[in-house]
Amino acid sequence: MRTYAYLGPAGTFTEAALKTISKSSDQLIPFANVTAALEAVRTNKAEFALVPIENSVEGVVARTLDELAIGEPLVILQETTLPVSFSLMVLAGNKSKRINSVATHPHAEAQCRAYIAKNMPGAEVITTASTAAAAEGLANGNYDAAIAAPIAALHYGLEIIADDIGDNVAAVTRFVLVGKPGKIPAKTGHDRTSLAAFIGADHAGALLEILTEFSVRGVNLTFIQSRPTGRELGSYHFIIDAEGHINEERVGDVLMGLRRICEDVRFLGSYPRADKISPTTTKSTTDKSFQSASAWLTEVRQGKKI
Amino acid sequence: MRTYAYLGPAGTFTEAALKTISKSSDQLIPFANVTAALEAVRTNKAEFALVPIENSVEGVVARTLDELAIGEPLVILQETTLPVSFSLMVLAGNKSKRINSVATHPHAEAQCRAYIAKNMPGAEVITTASTAAAAEGLANGNYDAAIAAPIAALHYGLEIIADDIGDNVAAVTRFVLVGKPGKIPAKTGHDRTSLAAFIGADHAGALLEILTEFSVRGVNLTFIQSRPTGRELGSYHFIIDAEGHINEERVGDVLMGLRRICEDVRFLGSYPRADKISPTTTKSTTDKSFQSASAWLTEVRQGKKI
Amino acid sequence: MRTYAYLGPAGTFTEAALKTISKSSDQLIPFANVTAALEAVRTNKAEFALVPIENSVEGVVARTLDELAIGEPLVILQETTLPVSFSLMVLAGNKSKRINSVATHPHAEAQCRAYIAKNMPGAEVITTASTAAAAEGLANGNYDAAIAAPIAALHYGLEIIADDIGDNVAAVTRFVLVGKPGKIPAKTGHDRTSLAAFIGADHAGALLEILTEFSVRGVNLTFIQSRPTGRELGSYHFIIDAEGHINEERVGDVLMGLRRICEDVRFLGSYPRADKISPTTTKSTTDKSFQSASAWLTEVRQGKKI
Amino acid sequence: MRTYAYLGPAGTFTEAALKTISKSSDQLIPFANVTAALEAVRTNKAEFALVPIENSVEGVVARTLDELAIGEPLVILQETTLPVSFSLMVLAGNKSKRINSVATHPHAEAQCRAYIAKNMPGAEVITTASTAAAAEGLANGNYDAAIAAPIAALHYGLEIIADDIGDNVAAVTRFVLVGKPGKIPAKTGHDRTSLAAFIGADHAGALLEILTEFSVRGVNLTFIQSRPTGRELGSYHFIIDAEGHINEERVGDVLMGLRRICEDVRFLGSYPRADKISPTTTKSTTDKSFQSASAWLTEVRQGKKI
Repeated sequence: MRTYAYLGPAGTFTEAALKTISKSSDQLIPFANVTAALEAVRTNKAEFALVPIENSVEGVVARTLDELAIGEPLVILQETTLPVSFSLMVLAGNKSKRINSVATHPHAEAQCRAYIAKNMPGAEVITTASTAAAAEGLANGNYDAAIAAPIAALHYGLEIIADDIGDNVAAVTRFVLVGKPGKIPAKTGHDRTSLAAFIGADHAGALLEILTEFSVRGVNLTFIQSRPTGRELGSYHFIIDAEGHINEERVGDVLMGLRRICEDVRFLGSYPRADKISPTTTKSTTDKSFQSASAWLTEVRQGKKI
Repeated sequence: MRTYAYLGPAGTFTEAALKTISKSSDQLIPFANVTAALEAVRTNKAEFALVPIENSVEGVVARTLDELAIGEPLVILQETTLPVSFSLMVLAGNKSKRINSVATHPHAEAQCRAYIAKNMPGAEVITTASTAAAAEGLANGNYDAAIAAPIAALHYGLEIIADDIGDNVAAVTRFVLVGKPGKIPAKTGHDRTSLAAFIGADHAGALLEILTEFSVRGVNLTFIQSRPTGRELGSYHFIIDAEGHINEERVGDVLMGLRRICEDVRFLGSYPRADKISPTTTKSTTDKSFQSASAWLTEVRQGKKI
Repeated sequence: MRTYAYLGPAGTFTEAALKTISKSSDQLIPFANVTAALEAVRTNKAEFALVPIENSVEGVVARTLDELAIGEPLVILQETTLPVSFSLMVLAGNKSKRINSVATHPHAEAQCRAYIAKNMPGAEVITTASTAAAAEGLANGNYDAAIAAPIAALHYGLEIIADDIGDNVAAVTRFVLVGKPGKIPAKTGHDRTSLAAFIGADHAGALLEILTEFSVRGVNLTFIQSRPTGRELGSYHFIIDAEGHINEERVGDVLMGLRRICEDVRFLGSYPRADKISPTTTKSTTDKSFQSASAWLTEVRQGKKI
Repeated sequence: MRTYAYLGPAGTFTEAALKTISKSSDQLIPFANVTAALEAVRTNKAEFALVPIENSVEGVVARTLDELAIGEPLVILQETTLPVSFSLMVLAGNKSKRINSVATHPHAEAQCRAYIAKNMPGAEVITTASTAAAAEGLANGNYDAAIAAPIAALHYGLEIIADDIGDNVAAVTRFVLVGKPGKIPAKTGHDRTSLAAFIGADHAGALLEILTEFSVRGVNLTFIQSRPTGRELGSYHFIIDAEGHINEERVGDVLMGLRRICEDVRFLGSYPRADKISPTTTKSTTDKSFQSASAWLTEVRQGKKI
């Protein structure tokens, strides 16, 4: 049995995502926000934490990134994605009643505006702290309907009237499973490496230098974001996701390069990509190419005629 | 009299920021989310909209960026920043009553955790959709205290017990004032230019190419974020803030370079920086340097002996 | 009738190359060295000068490059190439006499060493100031044979015993036709542009900056050489040949970029390539791409909704 | 006693340079051209060879570079520079006789043209295969005067009338001492590393990639030249001199990078600079920085909390 912290409350997309990677015998503990969920791992209240990291309707990306980059060190062990799918739900048995008020999180309201305008033009829209909170309030009889994740209906015994009512049916949230630093997940051939690179104040051109460290070794990025580090004005860090695993030569070489030129670098994890896409490597960026170049240098330094 | 839409509800940091740039005679209209506030400008319900764009406790950055990058075109006309300052407030006259329950937005709770643990260790924490919603609920008598922006106390007639109770006293939110495309604010010498650069799927190395267009003309970035464009897998765009004004030669030259190499580029505005920091230019990146190089090329092409 | 100066003496590869681009009615004047031939154009003794620029057995490349880069300005109007083909020649009628002494230029001796070792192992090798001087000395009866350009046999009435006796049958010399600055040859679609880029002392990284100006506009190089500028220690310039014509947008844009970042730039000519190879352009480096980006910028600056 | 081959004949600048680095007990053997001098080392007729490599009046740079890059491998062990100083010399006792004819190498004639025009306006100028050959011919009574290196006067018993008669008094020739691959000279802190980097045909952008390998590790170049490799059209190599020693981490790292991306790389030697200029390193390019980054990567890969 394992213990997982997650961004609660129960009934949100994060719980749904966690169910896809945990066993029924595991213990799943909701926390009020990302910081609390991650702190649970740091203080040994949970072995792992699952938190959203990108494109979530709950808007917590920045918090997750900041905690991983600046908080007490944790590493990403796994990632999982979940389609963002909003359902309209009512109290069981109320399926055919007119909806005069509907509750949801502000972001969800933005994404379901077209549906609301068409199907409940006169309904009052009440905003809540999470989509699960909307479902909970519905269960408490506070309003007529809620827009939430399908799992919320299950959780609060509600009845779903309509599925996939959001504008963007392709929307996906990426979640990361986080643990204490220790064993790095094995290389799979379709891995992602996350890191935070810190630069000093007033270092114009630093980002180009950082990216050149990647490109010169043929390592592609899949995500980048600059963040003010917060301690002093003009001090920045970059959160970067790159293709490949730290135990691959080219990725290790990039990390060493960053370590040399950055004020600080924090390794945030190497783990299998949810989409199982393998990095594109050329003959000059394989492990073999790095190892053979290293062997060649050793011989040249020994004065051997090459 | 001008009409401003803003991210509501009334009593949040956005309203406080808007008050610093509007007149008392102006009309300020709160909207439930960023999309709605921006849509008000698009549909002529408001002349301008003020929305948070970076580092906000309300977590709406992604929504603002996506609306500007992908929604029907709007441009940034001005930016303003506001320190993120949380206050603890109670009903007027209840200053010395024991606090058994306190409400706030989940992000605010994360930032004020140390204060809560020390001063109200036994209090129940209730999360709300916004800090203003917490204040409103307090005014309605739903709980004993709320953590919100100081302006919320003013708005709901509450009494502040403690100011600046967040962990990070340096936290700042950046807001942008947005309008319909038209006249670009005049050059001030300390401007910022925002843009969105779109790249096609499977274009490894595109980010380095994009950054090189900036660096080769000596234009520094102040912000960058990659975002999945959403329509097809692997299709990305970058939101970029750069130093300088589109009417400066080097910035215009960068934009033309991006226009050539990117699938698409959207200009999001040139406007004065709130911090009034001027870009660092060298003798090779001034307007004069660009103009004199252009005059020289014309002469060389005419076969003049230079 | 036109007057051409060329690197003499008569009977060398340069005269042979000049015959391929001049008419029989033109006047061809040999000069003792490259500087003298170019000076003839500067002082109006000749309209044009043909001099070797690359890979010549006569070793004069550096002189040509230095004259063009640092001397009083001249521009390249045309290039032509000639295979380096050495012939062994004797006095007419001496075809079957044993060769005890053979004269040639030191570079030619190096390239024909295998042939000499095999066919005249005991012969004394006499070095001369040019291959034509070897032929002239042979005509004067100074030794038994000479190794020179085929044209030298014609010139001095000698008899060729063996052709193509050099080691590298693919060797080619590139010559440039030089004139006073004035009209630039028309664009042909397969042009080369030559230039000299000067950098100040102690400017580490300058070469990378220079090359980036080319690569960011998709302009490929075909030749590069660093040269000490000579006036002060550590001051360098680069002689660069690039694909394309100065009247093409991307090439003009590169030149403006270099003009901004270099201490000085000298345009050395745009002219058709002898090999008629066209540059590889992508959709982002065509004239049309540059013009459409420029039109777009104008509209964006006017505040039009794009 | 050591045996040195050198570019002859005796009495040229190369012999003068060799005297500055050899002992009087050493054996110095002149060869007719650079190829022959280097071949003497390859075939064990000499232990070392001294040949000019850059900016020489004898014009042999290309030959030296080609032999090192493409011929059977040799390495540079030392470099030395010599000011290019031309002297006017006559037969002993003829100091006050009128000069009607003067002999010299064509390059020397170009450099001394102003002096000749002013002091011997009517003299016939005879060109010879080397400046030493001019001195030798003078000793044989072939003409009235010779322009050559001061050492030639010593060698042929001639009398110097005027020193430093060239236009460019700052001109310097750089010579390299070459030997068979084996022991690399020890690091001195002011070293240069020479190499040849080969790229395949049609690899546009290859030079930028090559330079980026240097710049990303903070290694500056002091010389670069492209050369057609000769075997197939469009196949190039670059001769590059860089600051630093192969046994320094950043230089070794560059070499490995080049080995990975180039078709071939040949190490041509690490040796002390004649001008004793030390490379500029930053805190991110020292050996210590490389070693500490490597130690850090090892710990991160072991899952240690950094």
